[in-house]
Amino acid sequence: MAQRNILLMDGPDHKGLIYQVTRILFEHNQNIIRNDEYVSPSGYFFMRTEFEGDTDVNEVLKVLQTELPAGLNLRINPKKKKDIVLFVTKEHHCLGELLIRYAFDELDADILAVVSNYNTLQPLVGKFGIPFHFISHENKTREEHEALILKTLDIYQPEYLVLAKYMRIITPEFVRHFPNKIINIHHSFLPAFIGANPYRQAYDRGVKIIGATAHFVNNDLDEGPIIAQDVKSVDHRQTAADMATLGKDTEKAVLSKALKLVFNDRVFIHNNRTIIF
Amino acid sequence: MAQRNILLMDGPDHKGLIYQVTRILFEHNQNIIRNDEYVSPSGYFFMRTEFEGDTDVNEVLKVLQTELPAGLNLRINPKKKKDIVLFVTKEHHCLGELLIRYAFDELDADILAVVSNYNTLQPLVGKFGIPFHFISHENKTREEHEALILKTLDIYQPEYLVLAKYMRIITPEFVRHFPNKIINIHHSFLPAFIGANPYRQAYDRGVKIIGATAHFVNNDLDEGPIIAQDVKSVDHRQTAADMATLGKDTEKAVLSKALKLVFNDRVFIHNNRTIIF
Amino acid sequence: MAQRNILLMDGPDHKGLIYQVTRILFEHNQNIIRNDEYVSPSGYFFMRTEFEGDTDVNEVLKVLQTELPAGLNLRINPKKKKDIVLFVTKEHHCLGELLIRYAFDELDADILAVVSNYNTLQPLVGKFGIPFHFISHENKTREEHEALILKTLDIYQPEYLVLAKYMRIITPEFVRHFPNKIINIHHSFLPAFIGANPYRQAYDRGVKIIGATAHFVNNDLDEGPIIAQDVKSVDHRQTAADMATLGKDTEKAVLSKALKLVFNDRVFIHNNRTIIF
Amino acid sequence: MAQRNILLMDGPDHKGLIYQVTRILFEHNQNIIRNDEYVSPSGYFFMRTEFEGDTDVNEVLKVLQTELPAGLNLRINPKKKKDIVLFVTKEHHCLGELLIRYAFDELDADILAVVSNYNTLQPLVGKFGIPFHFISHENKTREEHEALILKTLDIYQPEYLVLAKYMRIITPEFVRHFPNKIINIHHSFLPAFIGANPYRQAYDRGVKIIGATAHFVNNDLDEGPIIAQDVKSVDHRQTAADMATLGKDTEKAVLSKALKLVFNDRVFIHNNRTIIF
Repeated sequence: MAQRNILLMDGPDHKGLIYQVTRILFEHNQNIIRNDEYVSPSGYFFMRTEFEGDTDVNEVLKVLQTELPAGLNLRINPKKKKDIVLFVTKEHHCLGELLIRYAFDELDADILAVVSNYNTLQPLVGKFGIPFHFISHENKTREEHEALILKTLDIYQPEYLVLAKYMRIITPEFVRHFPNKIINIHHSFLPAFIGANPYRQAYDRGVKIIGATAHFVNNDLDEGPIIAQDVKSVDHRQTAADMATLGKDTEKAVLSKALKLVFNDRVFIHNNRTIIF
Repeated sequence: MAQRNILLMDGPDHKGLIYQVTRILFEHNQNIIRNDEYVSPSGYFFMRTEFEGDTDVNEVLKVLQTELPAGLNLRINPKKKKDIVLFVTKEHHCLGELLIRYAFDELDADILAVVSNYNTLQPLVGKFGIPFHFISHENKTREEHEALILKTLDIYQPEYLVLAKYMRIITPEFVRHFPNKIINIHHSFLPAFIGANPYRQAYDRGVKIIGATAHFVNNDLDEGPIIAQDVKSVDHRQTAADMATLGKDTEKAVLSKALKLVFNDRVFIHNNRTIIF
Repeated sequence: MAQRNILLMDGPDHKGLIYQVTRILFEHNQNIIRNDEYVSPSGYFFMRTEFEGDTDVNEVLKVLQTELPAGLNLRINPKKKKDIVLFVTKEHHCLGELLIRYAFDELDADILAVVSNYNTLQPLVGKFGIPFHFISHENKTREEHEALILKTLDIYQPEYLVLAKYMRIITPEFVRHFPNKIINIHHSFLPAFIGANPYRQAYDRGVKIIGATAHFVNNDLDEGPIIAQDVKSVDHRQTAADMATLGKDTEKAVLSKALKLVFNDRVFIHNNRTIIF
Repeated sequence: MAQRNILLMDGPDHKGLIYQVTRILFEHNQNIIRNDEYVSPSGYFFMRTEFEGDTDVNEVLKVLQTELPAGLNLRINPKKKKDIVLFVTKEHHCLGELLIRYAFDELDADILAVVSNYNTLQPLVGKFGIPFHFISHENKTREEHEALILKTLDIYQPEYLVLAKYMRIITPEFVRHFPNKIINIHHSFLPAFIGANPYRQAYDRGVKIIGATAHFVNNDLDEGPIIAQDVKSVDHRQTAADMATLGKDTEKAVLSKALKLVFNDRVFIHNNRTIIF
């Protein structure tokens, strides 16, 4: 029986790359179902190919590694369900959305645990039988707090961390443990209103549209590669608090969408930008 | 110097099609810049490839025709600027948009003439130095009227007809002269509110969103393949007339978008649906 | 301390209505915080006023009833939290959304019970400690089934029924028990694709946008007053199944938005249209 | 015959203001057709009332001025068609849109003249028979250039200046001549990407949505009250140049929408925010 496979590939562009890949797949009796490529203006190549066939896919990978130019990053059939840990503080809207999706197997991921600096959301997480780690930041330096979190993460060995309204700044040192593996939902249409109280800022500026941004976290807070954004119209009647309430729906929808893309291996990162197939 | 080329290809799917095409391009020293493919659930294959190289592109086409499976529809480098004739009645909003774009060479098409069953818009067309053919439908059967129009079109030999708010029903007989070459803007979110007075219908139904649809025209009025759609929010305060005014902005934006896609050779048609790259 | 009050009023328009109402509020030392009015083209008047003051609001209502023209429908301070019963079949997305909101007191309603013709969603509802009534329709006439449901509803005396993906047709006889009190989420952009399998229909028609519609239920299925609608873009790659998955996010967002409007007493109904303040 | 009138009113809030206004209108036999009010959290009151009646509207205004609390800003029946002058540089998309609307009397304004620091768009403006003033900024200080422009504006005495892609910074001194009377279209979703080359900035930041903002101009460039905003989705394939092209459609739509609101006397300004009815 034919198996559906995914090949991910990125690296410096070379003439004939698509030809080489499709040739090798053809020679291994693999049928391409869907193929996406992109070459950046700077000459970097990205390709995501779905294909079906009955030959050993590891065999195919070996041939690709041998015959394609050096310097390419090649992956075949990444783990289908990503192991993830969620980070939350006190707001439930993103967490609730992800728990419901997870309960019905729609998340393309296994939620191994939820980490929080408050115990507010423990009852909700408890309903779904997922471990909840309340790790307070009180009376601790940022480094002490993060050390405790890292110890907890050690137990689970997650591939991705999802900051589902985690309202703590994390240090570059912490980020270094999970390069391009931390996803955050930011409660503004980045790069507008970077930083604290974006809805207050939006109200004060009198904008007619508010938004939310899901992005990878890198060293510079709020500056990592953007995965998804969406917006909602507002008018003068909305207070900053109303905007925050309205914004929550956008936040959870944008985070869900971004996670779906990342967990389905559709997102490449290059030069602080995402390429999404 | 390398020339930018476009290859368009559709037909029944075969294993290895992408490989065959990319091989032939590679062997002719052509570099793929952008590649889009799609295979429909029914097994029909679509491909649009942009490539650059210095070999003769007719040579490439000949080899493709020889080596690829029979039954494929292959085109290389379709005419860049399409020859078009616009059809209008009395409303100026779509016409004005297209004339301004044309005046600044943004239309990817040459407007050879404007045909209308009223002379209302003659002064506007005159400002842009384009022939205006006022062909009244009064005191004529539909067939007589269309015969006169066809005679006029004979002069211009347009590739596409654009119905930019042409409020006359056209006969299947007329359509047969321009299969998949007539583009219409319909003032509703098809398939809702098919037929006359869609904004009146929308008002009566109390919808909260109105829309517009650009589509190819086939024998069944309002039933041809959809190219582009967009919507705008409305509320109870808008009368049917307000909706019509508001809808005009959507209509011209949707028609412009659809024409850009068609004239850039990004649109395939299959089974009454469009595949757009 | 000043109390925040809401006055709802609709009926045939009379000259000076706003003046009369604002005068009476002024004379009772009530301060208007927010005022919305609308007069339909057919001469029907709608008003929703938020006001604050320390006089007895029942006194105010009595004066309004005495001094305003007869034939007006007047309500002051409707119950803040509506008593509701949810109806579901097998799909969890709308239910999950509402349960999470309810758990955090964001629904402006009390979910008294969930009724379903399948027991699929019992475990989810159980997590939230809400009664779940599995009333199978198998081996029953439609009338027998509805009689059982009505008996269950008798226990709870809900003000509103919310059909959160309840995939059974309900009879006009059933609707008659809850006039303008049943809210449905329809998985299409009404009036397009009325009836079964709207995503299949949307796929076959090749639309570029899909939508969802929340509406009151009246005798004609899918024909009741529309409360809220929203849309999402799709392209040729989406199968009917993909559209259904994508559509679910729109469905739950639209239903949530509609319920918020209704439960906050912002929705009037007139001539099969909604007036929303 | 009843005449349709508009009353605009803003100032510090007082209890009973709506009552006083509606009473005076009622006593003058004026019928309210539409009424919009808003009180800001800071206690500032805004009201826009459309009413019909056969008494002298100046009489009504006099009574309002006498009987209402001092400190209110009251206007009745502002000039229906605003006198405006357009400012452009080299881009035609906003200008073309406005000229077409003007030619068909859809602009709610009279375009008295077009001022430009280049002569690029003179031929387009000429088609519509509107005076074009080419006032080059070359070899002039900013002050000299603006002095020339002011001299030209003196001829026309416009109420509003519309910067329809005018790519020159204007001085606070110049703005002081037209307080809250200059409307600009900014090619970004403010406050993101303030300043030059916003589409380049948007590309570099890898945003998934771009936008445009119409706003009043005050002393701080790009910081005036926002009137309207809209957005469009983009992805990694769009270059900065593609985004600029795509953005133009948003720019002209947003500017058109904003002008319609302002010219219909629907926009109040307070604390650098707009209140729009």
